[in-house]
Amino acid sequence: MIYFDNAATSWPKPEEVYKEVEKTLRNCGNPGRGGHKMALGAGRVIFEARQEIGSLFNIKNPMRLVLTSNTTEALNIALKGVLKEGDHVITSSMEHNSIIRPLMTLKQKGIEVTIVKANGEGKIDPEDIKKAIATNTKMIAITHASNVTGTIMPIEEIGNIAREMNLIFLVDAAQTAGVLPIDVEKQNIDLLAFAGHKGLYGPQGTGGLYVREGIEILPLEEGGTGSKSESMYQPDLMPDKLESGTPNTPGIAGLKEGVKFVKSVGVDSIRRQEEKLTKILIEGLKEIKGVKIYGPQRVEERVGVVSVTLKDKDVGEISYILDKDFNIATRSGLHCAPLAHSTIGTLRTGTVRFGIGYFNTEEEVEKAIKAIEIISQKTF
Amino acid sequence: MIYFDNAATSWPKPEEVYKEVEKTLRNCGNPGRGGHKMALGAGRVIFEARQEIGSLFNIKNPMRLVLTSNTTEALNIALKGVLKEGDHVITSSMEHNSIIRPLMTLKQKGIEVTIVKANGEGKIDPEDIKKAIATNTKMIAITHASNVTGTIMPIEEIGNIAREMNLIFLVDAAQTAGVLPIDVEKQNIDLLAFAGHKGLYGPQGTGGLYVREGIEILPLEEGGTGSKSESMYQPDLMPDKLESGTPNTPGIAGLKEGVKFVKSVGVDSIRRQEEKLTKILIEGLKEIKGVKIYGPQRVEERVGVVSVTLKDKDVGEISYILDKDFNIATRSGLHCAPLAHSTIGTLRTGTVRFGIGYFNTEEEVEKAIKAIEIISQKTF
Repeated sequence: MIYFDNAATSWPKPEEVYKEVEKTLRNCGNPGRGGHKMALGAGRVIFEARQEIGSLFNIKNPMRLVLTSNTTEALNIALKGVLKEGDHVITSSMEHNSIIRPLMTLKQKGIEVTIVKANGEGKIDPEDIKKAIATNTKMIAITHASNVTGTIMPIEEIGNIAREMNLIFLVDAAQTAGVLPIDVEKQNIDLLAFAGHKGLYGPQGTGGLYVREGIEILPLEEGGTGSKSESMYQPDLMPDKLESGTPNTPGIAGLKEGVKFVKSVGVDSIRRQEEKLTKILIEGLKEIKGVKIYGPQRVEERVGVVSVTLKDKDVGEISYILDKDFNIATRSGLHCAPLAHSTIGTLRTGTVRFGIGYFNTEEEVEKAIKAIEIISQKTF
Repeated sequence: MIYFDNAATSWPKPEEVYKEVEKTLRNCGNPGRGGHKMALGAGRVIFEARQEIGSLFNIKNPMRLVLTSNTTEALNIALKGVLKEGDHVITSSMEHNSIIRPLMTLKQKGIEVTIVKANGEGKIDPEDIKKAIATNTKMIAITHASNVTGTIMPIEEIGNIAREMNLIFLVDAAQTAGVLPIDVEKQNIDLLAFAGHKGLYGPQGTGGLYVREGIEILPLEEGGTGSKSESMYQPDLMPDKLESGTPNTPGIAGLKEGVKFVKSVGVDSIRRQEEKLTKILIEGLKEIKGVKIYGPQRVEERVGVVSVTLKDKDVGEISYILDKDFNIATRSGLHCAPLAHSTIGTLRTGTVRFGIGYFNTEEEVEKAIKAIEIISQKTF
């Protein structure tokens, strides 16, 4: 299998991830809920994961890092835990439904939502965000890079605006954690939601949310936390406040190893490798008649998520042929981001998406280009 | 390690669980979000899990089974998704904080909560529940068996009351799924929350919620579902409505194998084995001077969760010695259920809890009894 669906979930994972998941599953108890060796072992694994992830994003206090089951959960906690009736939030037309759908629910509860429109390449103008700020604006919620066009958003500039205007800055790093440098201090990020199973090479079922000290946030779920067991009320201490119930210890253990792998290779090297492959893919696809590539053409302005259409050919059919005839995995359709497709003009057709990962090779990219060339000549 | 912390998480898991988690982690894509072989494979794994679990609980339509990351998430969805301002809910004093804490939050939002008090053995009288019903009562939310005393609740009788009075019946099966027979039809259960990593022998990070057809329920989280991608609003179709974001496919695959294991042994055989061991444990501990055993003395009225205290000895110290000197894993403290401890009179002291599982042996139970006997003679 030539795997180009890394934007959905990365594959393969580093060998250590598989091994650590198995080891933990075979040996670990329930963390924070018992004093015996196995429970303590589980607690240690989770604390180490918090430290590893924390240091990758320059999070000083690992206890501000909440482990979730995916980015969606992290974003829901961030949006619903912070925004109250009468608050205003600014977001963009390039967001995934994991931001848009919770915001539509919040809108029904009296939260005002402004969706700043990106241009045809999926770029947001920070000036447009600045213009949208009102007296009741509380938060700016922006993806770090689009899952449809790969466009990298100007989060430094937006972060500066947020800091200057005293707004809470939420960044959706589903496509960028492990792929682009993230520094919550330098980038003024107050809330960082990320996936564990994409660029951090952990297992599915993992993700997280960083919550800056001082941000007032309520949990979405209450329950057993192993702390303040004598109380009928959710404890206020972090991360317990936002982490109820038995955690996914084996998954978190795997994520820890994924993050260690990312650090050992280095985010910069990963980025260079993905940039190189993305460049080859874009240059190659450009030469094929009928192919339209969405998002910025310059690789410096995008991550390795490449959406294409092929004249009037059905994108589902293209992905099907890529899989069946060429053993190439892509994803086709609307990628859970209808507004982004509206923005780039593909709401009706969808796109075929190539999601490049660190483990892809030049040879694989060449094969994909060749396959698209052959498909472009087919009639269907 | 002699493991008696099965009430927190079961250990070991059947070999097939370990193998299936690894196989899935090594080979699976992101289900429902791509048409290629690996994504379809993941989708199939999850559908099979829904079928396996569904048939264990006599759930006719597996699409009414929502997969969650633990029981706590399932209970939060069930309570917060169904109850609205002005509604009344009846629960018991034997509930885990995963029911009590969400209810305390809902109380602040205008939902009325009645907590029916159990007796000293942790038993609830269905008549007390009947008496608590008011004109605005919408739901009865009850644990199937206490995680502190092991007391089995009369859910058949309570289910009949719920049906008769047209109330929604929510059962917390964290301690009973895989251990006691559960039939959502016969027992009139409308909402069934369960753990994947306890009596179903799946990995941590798994659980679920059955939602009977016709129950109006809102999601706690919205996001990408892989369905109705063109819409900015959460789709109404189940289970997608309540399952946003990338699922824990490897964990769910493991849970599927855990459930297959439970079915192959048979819930009745598991129950008989656990009953036998519980009887030996209780009879043995009874003989030791100073030991107090909580909950029903008759094993037929309880699951294999046995809470004890030992005169005025600190329970944390007892668990510590059991672990250090005897290599026996137990859990001590309040077990995230302060009201239950109030009910049985151990809120100040907590208890040492033995959680028996199918893989425990008579020999292990004998060793535990012997260890408690030795500890009872120590001064600390």
